[in-house]
Amino acid sequence: MENGAWIKRISPRLTPPSLKDNTADVDRLVKGIKKGLGDEEVSVDFALIKGLTPSLRKYDYEVSAALFQEHNCWHLIDVFSAQGGNGIYGLALDLGSSTLVLRLMDLETGRIMDETSFHNPQIEIGADILTRIHFAAQDGGLIKLQGILIGRLNEEISKLAEKNGIGSEYIVGMSVAGNTTMTHLFLGLDPYWICREPYIPVVNSPGLLKSRDLGIKINPGAPILISPNVGSYFGGDLIAGILASGMTHQRETAFLVDVGTNAEVVIGNRDWLMACAGAAGPALEGGVASMGMMAGPGVIDHVLIDPANSEFEIRIIKDDGSIEAPQGQKPVGICGSGLIDLAAQLFLAGMIDLRGKFVAERCGDRLVDMDGISHLIVVPPEDSATGQALTLSQTDIDGLIRSKAAMYTILTTIANTVNISLKEISRFYVAGTFGPYINPQSAITIGMIPDLPLETYVSLGNTSLNGAGMALLRADAKDELFQIRDQITYLELNVNQEFMNLFSAAKFIPHTDRSLFPSVKTGNF
Amino acid sequence: MENGAWIKRISPRLTPPSLKDNTADVDRLVKGIKKGLGDEEVSVDFALIKGLTPSLRKYDYEVSAALFQEHNCWHLIDVFSAQGGNGIYGLALDLGSSTLVLRLMDLETGRIMDETSFHNPQIEIGADILTRIHFAAQDGGLIKLQGILIGRLNEEISKLAEKNGIGSEYIVGMSVAGNTTMTHLFLGLDPYWICREPYIPVVNSPGLLKSRDLGIKINPGAPILISPNVGSYFGGDLIAGILASGMTHQRETAFLVDVGTNAEVVIGNRDWLMACAGAAGPALEGGVASMGMMAGPGVIDHVLIDPANSEFEIRIIKDDGSIEAPQGQKPVGICGSGLIDLAAQLFLAGMIDLRGKFVAERCGDRLVDMDGISHLIVVPPEDSATGQALTLSQTDIDGLIRSKAAMYTILTTIANTVNISLKEISRFYVAGTFGPYINPQSAITIGMIPDLPLETYVSLGNTSLNGAGMALLRADAKDELFQIRDQITYLELNVNQEFMNLFSAAKFIPHTDRSLFPSVKTGNF
Repeated sequence: MENGAWIKRISPRLTPPSLKDNTADVDRLVKGIKKGLGDEEVSVDFALIKGLTPSLRKYDYEVSAALFQEHNCWHLIDVFSAQGGNGIYGLALDLGSSTLVLRLMDLETGRIMDETSFHNPQIEIGADILTRIHFAAQDGGLIKLQGILIGRLNEEISKLAEKNGIGSEYIVGMSVAGNTTMTHLFLGLDPYWICREPYIPVVNSPGLLKSRDLGIKINPGAPILISPNVGSYFGGDLIAGILASGMTHQRETAFLVDVGTNAEVVIGNRDWLMACAGAAGPALEGGVASMGMMAGPGVIDHVLIDPANSEFEIRIIKDDGSIEAPQGQKPVGICGSGLIDLAAQLFLAGMIDLRGKFVAERCGDRLVDMDGISHLIVVPPEDSATGQALTLSQTDIDGLIRSKAAMYTILTTIANTVNISLKEISRFYVAGTFGPYINPQSAITIGMIPDLPLETYVSLGNTSLNGAGMALLRADAKDELFQIRDQITYLELNVNQEFMNLFSAAKFIPHTDRSLFPSVKTGNF
Repeated sequence: MENGAWIKRISPRLTPPSLKDNTADVDRLVKGIKKGLGDEEVSVDFALIKGLTPSLRKYDYEVSAALFQEHNCWHLIDVFSAQGGNGIYGLALDLGSSTLVLRLMDLETGRIMDETSFHNPQIEIGADILTRIHFAAQDGGLIKLQGILIGRLNEEISKLAEKNGIGSEYIVGMSVAGNTTMTHLFLGLDPYWICREPYIPVVNSPGLLKSRDLGIKINPGAPILISPNVGSYFGGDLIAGILASGMTHQRETAFLVDVGTNAEVVIGNRDWLMACAGAAGPALEGGVASMGMMAGPGVIDHVLIDPANSEFEIRIIKDDGSIEAPQGQKPVGICGSGLIDLAAQLFLAGMIDLRGKFVAERCGDRLVDMDGISHLIVVPPEDSATGQALTLSQTDIDGLIRSKAAMYTILTTIANTVNISLKEISRFYVAGTFGPYINPQSAITIGMIPDLPLETYVSLGNTSLNGAGMALLRADAKDELFQIRDQITYLELNVNQEFMNLFSAAKFIPHTDRSLFPSVKTGNF
């Protein structure tokens, strides 16, 4: 860790001033640090200079210095007493538009010390990004959006620091990964042009800031690394994700897919990278189906249907995040991965056909009509936590099929562009908090992802957060963020006739071309 | 100029955003600048990022960018419209404790455009540096001292810019040379420890600041270069002076002397540099003699005494700075160089002896007794602008002799330290505004400076200002400032028995050892 770090602490040996050595305080410190670093360049920001004389004298010239490296020069963050044995710490932040995840790390050991996640307080202004962009254009809107975000973040930082017994002045670095709009709102930059043709962010690579520039309550001199964006629709969260996946170090070509409202897809290897993003629809997040909801305690995550008797066996997420058959606890809804499972099981049980339509004779009395639309009762009222039946409507399935078709089409399109067959993919990384819950077998069954050996699929969890954390700890990882950004080719998805043809073909379960999904055995009922 | 500059302007070719090139605004600018600079590293301060999108759009992406270089990276100062044909300008400041001199320069041609000088407004708080250091320790004192200085400077900058038809935003750099305490007061740094053992400044090399850090009303992103100090008693003004002298590029050993209340002396060549500073007493500045004053209109600058009849011929400084015999205009006092001239002429005319005592029979009725002290009438009441006689007292001469002896002793001591005979000195640079007025022949006659061929003496004028200006314009000169600072050996003058012996021997005119001053022919009366 020590050698590869771009934020570090050293304890320079300083001899106190004397008539024989009346070097100025700051220069004495710089000289000591330079010596400690093996003669690398050292710079002290003017904002720090005033406070150094009192600090050095208070600590009797026995100090440790926290530093960060930029442009081949080490910049002083702060000095601390050499006594007391405090470490230096940093924060990695996944700056999501709905959820923020904050990770506290020990910068000297690399150890993850704690983690907390909380809702983005900007949701109270607008759940979706577009509403926030419009709000930002109002008088004082941008400042308000930034203010509530930084305010909430400061509260959480303070709690996290206190809980772990760390003074916030010892938090000397932060690494942030968010999408382009969220990054703008975090920095107080106007996102106005992000959603207007030709979709221009203010900045893609803001570089290193200081926490005092943003009012973040950690050490005021702490550098804040912002993961760079490729453009308005491919943000720093995905660049951090690519870093975390390690795909840029592998000879074999891999996919990295972040499943959400947008399907963000990267294909590549150590030699090249191509990315694209397209609307997959919110169905995959489970946020749209009538019984759909975000993953959480009591939410159905897995479904199994016995094809013999069409009996449903459901599993729900427990309070501790584990998944079990409900024992006493009644389900409240279904999340995205549960929906994918459910659709796959319905298809395998012959309860929906290859167009995703309910097969009445197979569904039996589970199928009811509500307001003229067919609904399948997944959980009867008496077994549901809401007291009402949890149902899946034909509309829900239609939405899911559009989403899965969009995803598959995007994967096909980007692979076609680089002249690679989907079968050649050696690794398929699934990113996002939603990723670990997806059952690849079910996703293959409905034709959302290619029919590759199951071991090809690797769930990476929160790759944005992991990437941000890596870049916080290691200089090579930080540099790689910017290399990835520069190296990546962004494919603008052209929704032309060819795309529409592919999309139409993918709107069947699993696909019109069954040879693409040899592993999916339809129950022939 | 262009190639050696560390502050420059380029006009990058930017293509406006389009769907085919939706690079973010800041990155588009950085990319354009990088290309224009031949792929050097470019960085944009966070403080600038917010304003760039509006500027780029206002100017239709046709901009010129002002940049400065630090740590092998070019930093954006600001963008301007590429139209309009404005240049970029900079300021060099000689930050004197009594007088400030401000020079406006064209950063692209190197041309000096204008210059203004004005009193240091801190004089109203304390004429001398020690009073100001004590005042700074009072509650709010430091802020007040800095505030009145910056306030006055801003007024003068604004006048200078207006007079030359330049918008202050086009002033994109500043270079400041001052002594250590003045530099601290300028930066708002506490000078408390400068005058207390072991005499430690807060900082010697503050590096580059931004004008916004100090509230200086030029372009807020303009870098401010502070000439580095060697220590509490050897300031950035002298380092800039060494730079301006060019002595560090010469094979032959030279002296550089700044004559003032402190005699600041540098000896060296391209291989080594040694410096010392010692109190020479205020006599050399003309500020102490009863008729003494700073050089200015109506002040006696040169005196000639006809040894045959002891008649005085005086010349005074005219309003335009030229020196002439007074025609109608009556003198108001005498400045330092006039005093040296007068003493030399008195000695050559036999009116003072080798101990500097008045020789009554040679002085005749010019010599009067006032309050028990002998005074020589230099200008009778009827010829004086004050209506009172301008006189030189025995006390004045005694003071001058102590000062000149101190100067000569310091020169001898530092030369002895490096084992060089004063005769080996090939160049003797005289710095300071006072320098050009000194008649080397007179200074040799009284034994203030060594008896070298007159062409050895070169007056350099305001070397601090010249050095600051050079460092503002050229990267190599800026780097050299810091090299000089690092290279210089500071000799702490030890007022021991040996020094006192040298001092005693130098308290004669020209010296007890007449062989040191072969050119000085005493009138043997």
